[in-house]
Amino acid sequence: MKIIIVGGVAGGASCAARARRLSEEAEIILIDRGPYVSFANCGLPYYVGDVIHEEENLLVATPELFKNRFNIEVRLENEVANISRDKKTVEIKDLKTGRVYVEPYDALVLSPGASPIKPPLPGIESEGIFVLRTIPDSRKIKQWITEKKVKSAVIVGGGFIGLEMAENLSLFGIQLSIIEMQTQVLPPFDPEMASSLHSHLKSHGVSLCLGEAVTGFEKNQDSSITVMTKGGLKMKSDLVILSIGVRPEVKLAKECALEIGQRGGIRVNEHMQTSDAHIWAVGDAVESRDFITGEWITVPLAGPANRQGRVAADSIFGRTTHFRGIQGTAVCKVFELIAALTGANEKNLKRLNIPYQKVYLYPGHHAGYYPNAKPIDMKILFSPKDGRILGAQAVGEEGVEKRIDVIAALIQKNGTVYDLEEAELCYAPQFGAAKDPVNIAGMLAANALRNDAPLAHWDQIDFKNVFFLDVRSSEEYSAEHVENAVNIPLDKIRENISALPREKEIYVYCGVGQRGYYAVRALRCNGFNAFNLSGGMKSYKAFTNQGLPTVKKVMQ
Amino acid sequence: MKIIIVGGVAGGASCAARARRLSEEAEIILIDRGPYVSFANCGLPYYVGDVIHEEENLLVATPELFKNRFNIEVRLENEVANISRDKKTVEIKDLKTGRVYVEPYDALVLSPGASPIKPPLPGIESEGIFVLRTIPDSRKIKQWITEKKVKSAVIVGGGFIGLEMAENLSLFGIQLSIIEMQTQVLPPFDPEMASSLHSHLKSHGVSLCLGEAVTGFEKNQDSSITVMTKGGLKMKSDLVILSIGVRPEVKLAKECALEIGQRGGIRVNEHMQTSDAHIWAVGDAVESRDFITGEWITVPLAGPANRQGRVAADSIFGRTTHFRGIQGTAVCKVFELIAALTGANEKNLKRLNIPYQKVYLYPGHHAGYYPNAKPIDMKILFSPKDGRILGAQAVGEEGVEKRIDVIAALIQKNGTVYDLEEAELCYAPQFGAAKDPVNIAGMLAANALRNDAPLAHWDQIDFKNVFFLDVRSSEEYSAEHVENAVNIPLDKIRENISALPREKEIYVYCGVGQRGYYAVRALRCNGFNAFNLSGGMKSYKAFTNQGLPTVKKVMQ
Repeated sequence: MKIIIVGGVAGGASCAARARRLSEEAEIILIDRGPYVSFANCGLPYYVGDVIHEEENLLVATPELFKNRFNIEVRLENEVANISRDKKTVEIKDLKTGRVYVEPYDALVLSPGASPIKPPLPGIESEGIFVLRTIPDSRKIKQWITEKKVKSAVIVGGGFIGLEMAENLSLFGIQLSIIEMQTQVLPPFDPEMASSLHSHLKSHGVSLCLGEAVTGFEKNQDSSITVMTKGGLKMKSDLVILSIGVRPEVKLAKECALEIGQRGGIRVNEHMQTSDAHIWAVGDAVESRDFITGEWITVPLAGPANRQGRVAADSIFGRTTHFRGIQGTAVCKVFELIAALTGANEKNLKRLNIPYQKVYLYPGHHAGYYPNAKPIDMKILFSPKDGRILGAQAVGEEGVEKRIDVIAALIQKNGTVYDLEEAELCYAPQFGAAKDPVNIAGMLAANALRNDAPLAHWDQIDFKNVFFLDVRSSEEYSAEHVENAVNIPLDKIRENISALPREKEIYVYCGVGQRGYYAVRALRCNGFNAFNLSGGMKSYKAFTNQGLPTVKKVMQ
Repeated sequence: MKIIIVGGVAGGASCAARARRLSEEAEIILIDRGPYVSFANCGLPYYVGDVIHEEENLLVATPELFKNRFNIEVRLENEVANISRDKKTVEIKDLKTGRVYVEPYDALVLSPGASPIKPPLPGIESEGIFVLRTIPDSRKIKQWITEKKVKSAVIVGGGFIGLEMAENLSLFGIQLSIIEMQTQVLPPFDPEMASSLHSHLKSHGVSLCLGEAVTGFEKNQDSSITVMTKGGLKMKSDLVILSIGVRPEVKLAKECALEIGQRGGIRVNEHMQTSDAHIWAVGDAVESRDFITGEWITVPLAGPANRQGRVAADSIFGRTTHFRGIQGTAVCKVFELIAALTGANEKNLKRLNIPYQKVYLYPGHHAGYYPNAKPIDMKILFSPKDGRILGAQAVGEEGVEKRIDVIAALIQKNGTVYDLEEAELCYAPQFGAAKDPVNIAGMLAANALRNDAPLAHWDQIDFKNVFFLDVRSSEEYSAEHVENAVNIPLDKIRENISALPREKEIYVYCGVGQRGYYAVRALRCNGFNAFNLSGGMKSYKAFTNQGLPTVKKVMQ
């Protein structure tokens, strides 16, 4: 058995090591056109920021280690030029010598990754414009920063890499602007959940140009670059980072006519096998099934890539291990904030017409009686039919990714919001609460499904025709409230209940939703048709800061 | 409907509030013999340590809030003296006035909690000996520390409260000793997992007297107390904290002949109903089903108490909500270490003859290439039949309770080690790794179940009759190794394979188990019958530090 693996990062390296663990006899050759094998891609922004000091820390394994430990031959700076499926051979070019040679294979694994998107805009090849995908890329950026004494930078694209780069570049005192085509950063999140990230970035001096498309770049005399946008902005800076996203590397696969999916990735089955039974493909280059929606997706994540590598190796040796699909669990640190998510977002559920219900909450990351509890902004999406969890998003300073991990684990088992209610999690005052944020999320959702406390949402109501009941204190009400809302503080509900309209739907809100919940229960037990505006005023502001037009003008 | 609830902390308070949310008509009376309702029990050690400054921070709710918000009447410093089940009345004594009166009920909920165990030892009632269960308890300890200028303290009992008290008392520079009857601290953990806690406590100047039983106390002239042990120790100190454990408060229940279980708690069904259909019981006073073993257990935990309170309220109003049982998920911070667990421990599985397999691992809490990755000591227990997760224990400085929470969530869904393998968790270099510790745990366990890499354990092998293969470097081997172990560094395995005995079982070990795994795969692919000693030398030391006799003398 001779296995050739194309691409030595994450998926490819995992596949190679796993293959060796399954067979001592197999000949395994790992080919990479770059100068490194198995490096820590996700560490690159932190290497640029000098948080990770040494380049060698990024090297997960070396060719020597592969040879000595696993008897795997690694050929760096070798590029597979084409694949002959009939002959089961690959043509390889040694980039150091220019030599072209042919290797036969019994099994071929494609793990070429994805390449940063560089749209064909005027001036995009100018000096000072960088992408970040490899160690040499980050080395070039570091060098540019030092040589040019970079004082300002424009980051094009406000996704995960863009925001991580913002944090890291800010460590050098660089003045930062982010241009993002969408009206929010971190597009995998729903816009209202990105709202606090926007203010946080601004509080760190990062200027945000959202909903702006870059139209071109101009190199200036002083080696600075001017970025131009559709909206007519001209932003001059010493450095431009392009972090618009990545595109599956499918050139090789296309040339040998392997099936390519609608999303532009290599199409594979659950054993990571391509349309050719002797060729497997893994990692950022392939399309995977979305675990929630069933859609084909391309999601460049290291964890799934590693798992796919092992599944492919298993499959090569006749094992029936299958890949479960991708939930899209991810986390991003943005200065002091942590943003994490798993499963589907509302945008996609809407687009796919998948029925969903949602809940917002803002619990403390640990018990309120212990110092320094920090709120976590949470949003849970679930099936109105059976309560199955469809997705979760969270943003806050501490304990954020922990809650998403717990929910991710439950999603994997088709868990429901009833499971969130019952989850028995670690509680000591530093770490959580007797009712953990995860439990509270489950309770709110389950209360809605049981019709105990039906929810309403600021972005789904007709502001002109509903009866708003504000159950906060009169002080809170005076400071700011929704137009035409009637104020009855929660503790006065019972004595004032006769003042409320029996024939109307009553939309109750408070600060974050808790008092609203108590009020809704009291009202419903008294025969009123009451709904709790999920997340109260805090959700309201997340929507209005997001510029939700229907919500914008109703404050008084 | 008139509901009387006896005991206003956690379970009782939750039940009262939930009952109100289910009915506006019900009359709800919450009776507590103490001066506070619904206080944060779990915060008391931190209030003693002045980490929580204000006593009022511990008060989750006040009688006024219960009245105004929930229309619930709270009667503090009132004690239920007895229950007349025939008449459905309780006799109540007002402790402030001495008045005794009778209240009828339709539903009675017992949430009396548990009381600290105070064995009838000579001198146990001396001044300067304290338990910690209530706000007044903690106030007394604080006062004693100040008044007596306490310089030294003995903590009797090394459980959760004992260790939390050690950390908090140390904040005042108090010299600490812990006496524990078992040979380990934190008895819910298995002994080898407590090993690192022992050295950590010692490094903070806490002296540990393990396996020592206290026989009595002597009050000295200078107001200090001498604690005497069975082993003949006499320990003089200014303060003694008794944290031996708690015992369900079942006096009332017993007196009215409610069924009491073998563990001494009130017996309830899954709706928290006692043997009397009009009486429910919740919280630390009841026995619950162990979610894993099915045993009846008494576990004083706030989270389950809260859930039970809600289940009882649901049941009173005819809802069929049931309590799922207790997994025993818990966490304890001990200076810089965090110790967390969920599910069954090995001691209990053994005692109950439940078949299990186990795995040890010591992964970093985040990616190794990012600065300051701290190891987490992990142990996972699982079913050898189907891989169902039976329990997990973890000790480390960071990211500890997160991993236990994820596993706790999977246990709740009868998850398996195969689910741990596949879990898709948050990964950015600050938060985890492409292969999260949870994934690695699953892989190791699943590799054993699939017979790809069978595991062996230091406490289960016959040291005299096995062939040990040490696959660490020759430098590591020279420094210290298991007696008679043969050293072939991992990277030299293939070239030296002929030196190994084909007829024997080969027990492979390395530093923490990873190199051992690679070696085992290479050996098994070559037809050898090899086993990986789980957790390598690090597990070996956890056992030997624990004084495991069969392991003790084999180092050379």
